[in-house]
Amino acid sequence: MNELIKAEVITIGDEILFGQITDTNTQWIGAQLTDMGIRPSWKTSVGDNKQDILNAFSEASKRVRVVIVTGGLGPTKDDITKYTFCEYFGSELKIHEEALAFITDFFEKRGRAMTALNTQQAALPTNATYIPNRWGTAPGMWFEKDDIIYVSLPGVPYEMKNLMEHEILPRLKERFRGNIIKHKVVKTIGIGESFLAEKISDWEDSLPSHIKLAYLPHFGQVRLRLTATGSDETRLDHELEELVASLLPYIETYVFGFDQDEMETVIGKLLYEQQATMGIAESCTGGFISHRITANSGSSLFFKGAVVSYSNDVKRTQLSVKEETLQAFGAVSEQTAIEMAEGAREALGATFAIATTGIAGPDGGTEEKPVGTIWVACASPSGTKTQLLQLKSSRKINIEMTSSYALNLLRKSIIDHYQALV
Amino acid sequence: MNELIKAEVITIGDEILFGQITDTNTQWIGAQLTDMGIRPSWKTSVGDNKQDILNAFSEASKRVRVVIVTGGLGPTKDDITKYTFCEYFGSELKIHEEALAFITDFFEKRGRAMTALNTQQAALPTNATYIPNRWGTAPGMWFEKDDIIYVSLPGVPYEMKNLMEHEILPRLKERFRGNIIKHKVVKTIGIGESFLAEKISDWEDSLPSHIKLAYLPHFGQVRLRLTATGSDETRLDHELEELVASLLPYIETYVFGFDQDEMETVIGKLLYEQQATMGIAESCTGGFISHRITANSGSSLFFKGAVVSYSNDVKRTQLSVKEETLQAFGAVSEQTAIEMAEGAREALGATFAIATTGIAGPDGGTEEKPVGTIWVACASPSGTKTQLLQLKSSRKINIEMTSSYALNLLRKSIIDHYQALV
Repeated sequence: MNELIKAEVITIGDEILFGQITDTNTQWIGAQLTDMGIRPSWKTSVGDNKQDILNAFSEASKRVRVVIVTGGLGPTKDDITKYTFCEYFGSELKIHEEALAFITDFFEKRGRAMTALNTQQAALPTNATYIPNRWGTAPGMWFEKDDIIYVSLPGVPYEMKNLMEHEILPRLKERFRGNIIKHKVVKTIGIGESFLAEKISDWEDSLPSHIKLAYLPHFGQVRLRLTATGSDETRLDHELEELVASLLPYIETYVFGFDQDEMETVIGKLLYEQQATMGIAESCTGGFISHRITANSGSSLFFKGAVVSYSNDVKRTQLSVKEETLQAFGAVSEQTAIEMAEGAREALGATFAIATTGIAGPDGGTEEKPVGTIWVACASPSGTKTQLLQLKSSRKINIEMTSSYALNLLRKSIIDHYQALV
Repeated sequence: MNELIKAEVITIGDEILFGQITDTNTQWIGAQLTDMGIRPSWKTSVGDNKQDILNAFSEASKRVRVVIVTGGLGPTKDDITKYTFCEYFGSELKIHEEALAFITDFFEKRGRAMTALNTQQAALPTNATYIPNRWGTAPGMWFEKDDIIYVSLPGVPYEMKNLMEHEILPRLKERFRGNIIKHKVVKTIGIGESFLAEKISDWEDSLPSHIKLAYLPHFGQVRLRLTATGSDETRLDHELEELVASLLPYIETYVFGFDQDEMETVIGKLLYEQQATMGIAESCTGGFISHRITANSGSSLFFKGAVVSYSNDVKRTQLSVKEETLQAFGAVSEQTAIEMAEGAREALGATFAIATTGIAGPDGGTEEKPVGTIWVACASPSGTKTQLLQLKSSRKINIEMTSSYALNLLRKSIIDHYQALV
């Protein structure tokens, strides 16, 4: 079998349309389906409105083989997904004994009282295959009609992800074998999309037709994603490897990683290999770099800690920045960045330390130092390096970009230091 | 005029379907449209595929008056939105002189070289109204056909938002007057969705039909959103106020804010009113609480800084946690949390300080202290309070929830301290 299996993800809920919550589910589902060779080809969000949901089901059934529906399964009155499935399939709701036992047990184990609303969560459309949810109280459901699969999952990300991972993806893998989509991502930092495109234009023109290239800019980084489709996994892998090898000479200095590599995990690996550690002094990034590092399990192996020195007091007392330096050059200066990095390296007992100080905006800019003026520094056993950033985005994005540039300075400092020792 | 104007947001790009980037645009657009009384009623994502894009345009035209399209306007070869608009409208691409002058100027001002690909960005469909983009190189476009408005914007969030705010929303406001949708959001923490629903069941049943209630759970918080539709803004505001006033007695102890209030801004306001300050000692939250606080401009008025004490060394040297305490009770203990909070209050010179220490997971749990065992503490001028959390989610969500509970403990400590002084 080498047919392209297409999927659509439908999310249900006014809160997503109205912009009141962030939808992280569909991104995750898209990535999971892609990885297993099913092509996510359409995504729909509709509100808590029966007619719209019915239309969404019916439109999806015309273009894809697999429809993944999330949301609208909660215990409250605005959740109408189950009723709508009944209408769509012409079935009816009935208490499912296994589901009821499961929910009862779920509440007992947690010592929590069960409400009448929770009992109703055990009612399922009569044509549904029951998918037990060990992570919450709304069961998953699997329907098939006219050779199309419909899967219904709760919208709570934790429950949805566990149900997908442990129940739905294995069933889909079993059903559809032989469709291969392979990806290879090359991650760059420090060069804009157009300039990158110019540099690799000849290479891009030489790509075979079954391999597509996409540019994915993201806060100062540009990811290059190659997508290959075919039926022979080994051959696709080999082709992608060769293409990446022929791409690298054009852009090597900008590449920091591949595929699942993130700046923070690349750094973690470099430090761990050298049994070295890092620390951070954060002013304008306000803890965000530490958060990026510690979001990864295992970071305690190389991350000593950080000082978020939002006030000048804290810069002096915790990082030993000199009063004279702050007076003479100001908090946003190369000199202060250097003393922060070196002070953090000392205070936190780390092999390497980075520092950020600047004006993230939207307030606080002056003519001499406009919003977006940011100094980053990296102190290492072989000296301290600095970089001046002049960013032009919103506070949030300035913080994001500064964190990436500071981590990239650290990455280069680690590589340089240990290369010099060889 | 009191017709309900519906809108659809269409995003274009394989990278969104494949789950390789997070789509934050549609959430933001949804919120903006909602605020101005246009109802976002459908959301579609399609890939970089001409036929799918054409189908998406055509389906949207059957159900909404306003279609906002983002993405696919970049300079590279996978960006096909403009060509597809030409095919959809039967128009053709032509260099737009004003757009070309703008782009040329954009590059000159930044001292950057312009590529042939950038020149092509000035080519627009002949039936497009040109919307100048002062924030990037891809112009916005406005089309009208059969009484339906189509807006095309770049997918880069910073450019898209500025174009919406300064160019598109004002035009839409001018076009559609008199449709009022008003929202009121009540934000709770520390009570689950079902229990909240039980508590307010009578109140919920008494809601008039033009006012809808939604439950929006979000990392230990549940937001209650009331949506009122009508034509008389003052009357709707008044109705919503009365409904909230009659709701509060049922759930007052769980409510921390309303509407745009976030835990961090509520705290900032409380501290600023008292001319008080805060500091943080973060272990398992790894800088995330500091990031939440400093994500808001103006936080330097009350936030002194933080120590991210990921190693025991840093707990001792920067926060004066006693070696005996770590030996006797371990890093994850009430005693360590207390010493961290009190140490941070002292070291950072803050009126209040919170501390977190625990096992965020997925590794590091023991039988006695399983993953999700987390202590939070808040040191204040009137003493130190602690709270034990036993969380059951992923690392990311455990960190999110801990940050909210720690900030809520701080919020209560501030209120208690100044109330005791009165």
